[in-house]
Amino acid sequence: MDNFERLSINQYTTREQWSLAQAIEGYARHGIRAMAVDSLKLRELGVAQAAKMLREHQMAVSGYCIGGLLTDHDPSKFRAEMANNRRVIDEAAEIGAQCVVFVAGGLTDGSKDIEGARERCLDGLAELIPHAQSADMVLALEPLHPMTGAFRSVLMTLRQANDWVERLGGASALGILLDVYHVWWEPDLAAEIKRAAGRIVGFHVSDFLMDTTDIRLDRGMMGDGVIDIPRIRGMVEATGYDGLIEVEIFSARDWWQRDPNEVVEVVKERYLAFV
Amino acid sequence: MDNFERLSINQYTTREQWSLAQAIEGYARHGIRAMAVDSLKLRELGVAQAAKMLREHQMAVSGYCIGGLLTDHDPSKFRAEMANNRRVIDEAAEIGAQCVVFVAGGLTDGSKDIEGARERCLDGLAELIPHAQSADMVLALEPLHPMTGAFRSVLMTLRQANDWVERLGGASALGILLDVYHVWWEPDLAAEIKRAAGRIVGFHVSDFLMDTTDIRLDRGMMGDGVIDIPRIRGMVEATGYDGLIEVEIFSARDWWQRDPNEVVEVVKERYLAFV
Repeated sequence: MDNFERLSINQYTTREQWSLAQAIEGYARHGIRAMAVDSLKLRELGVAQAAKMLREHQMAVSGYCIGGLLTDHDPSKFRAEMANNRRVIDEAAEIGAQCVVFVAGGLTDGSKDIEGARERCLDGLAELIPHAQSADMVLALEPLHPMTGAFRSVLMTLRQANDWVERLGGASALGILLDVYHVWWEPDLAAEIKRAAGRIVGFHVSDFLMDTTDIRLDRGMMGDGVIDIPRIRGMVEATGYDGLIEVEIFSARDWWQRDPNEVVEVVKERYLAFV
Repeated sequence: MDNFERLSINQYTTREQWSLAQAIEGYARHGIRAMAVDSLKLRELGVAQAAKMLREHQMAVSGYCIGGLLTDHDPSKFRAEMANNRRVIDEAAEIGAQCVVFVAGGLTDGSKDIEGARERCLDGLAELIPHAQSADMVLALEPLHPMTGAFRSVLMTLRQANDWVERLGGASALGILLDVYHVWWEPDLAAEIKRAAGRIVGFHVSDFLMDTTDIRLDRGMMGDGVIDIPRIRGMVEATGYDGLIEVEIFSARDWWQRDPNEVVEVVKERYLAFV
């Protein structure tokens, strides 16, 4: 045992540098035992080959990215996304992922109807639950920071995620994924984390940079920003969560430009120092 | 009478092009009868001269920017901001502003203590209320979009603004300023606007761009983004608000680069078409 048994790395942290095969081998070489897998990367490699490599490297899968994007007001596009969600659930089961990371989707094609988009997403979720249950898979609702809301997620707060889970009857195939980057600012964070007790199926870390230059692809490494990560981790663990802690950093200007071996080593250092 | 009796323009919409004197004359020349005034611009011109020019041009002042920034954990800096707030309140009264626009302030000097920053701001606000009351001035709490929270405002939602007003005992010197740019995404927006009935002392419009390139200075002109402004205006007016509607656009890459006369004319067109 070392200090990294709970550490997972989302492969998008080295998206630009490594394929899925390279990431599995690279993370394992650095002593990492869990990762999150992206569907585009998985489909490049092939699901059977990916499952085999993950097993051979004894790599746990903290999450499979992404399901959701169920906000389109064009019915044919909505149905295409529903079909993709079913495929994503099956792929997640095949690689032994702990959950499907569910991102709601944003406003599409010039629509200004955010409430309509929310209703469509809820309808789609309700329809997916039986498929997820039959695959023994959890759909992990991940609220995204409101700055990404317009184009990526109309689910924007932990409070709203709690509301959604309750509205959908608290189905066992639903969970909540809490990423400090998205929720650190919430006025009712402590109360909403308590309310999410038993629902939290994943915990993601990175940092919010004071000089953020891009509303989606400029996340910081833990310690480089203003999020008090140990405080939030403490609140999450007080609910009983003792699962994997996933580092997920989309960083077009910095970490995606570096040697991926350096990135993984810095992740390990910062995980010990700032998480 | 024309269609512009409720239209106000925040002078930061032409910040790079016009001084305060030029803005008063320019807006008046285009038939605008209300504006918001910035303290840096005011102090360049001098408060007496500004008050005289505003009177001569029969220009109402929808708001005076800005009070607040009361989050610093360095006591001497905090006291300096408190002194500036008193000066801002007095200046606002001298130019006949309808309110002081109160922006909470962000995290300073590497602090990660967002809850502490919130408490300091609430303490400062409570201390300012008697001064505002004696000046017959309203402190208009403006929640800012969470993406600006780290560096500009730990007050981030209309819901939180309602909580703050209630926590401060609903003092008559407190109001809420609702800017569609900051709150359009809120999951409970309809309920929180109803809850703010009687507290709303200002209504600001602009638009959220799908390709936002800067988290503070890339607001869009009404109609260029994804905010359903008439829907929000309808909810605000259903509470009884019938005051000025202020256009406030910080746009480093677009509107600040244009002829200010063009900017004002486009504001008028878009106000009729999209507000």
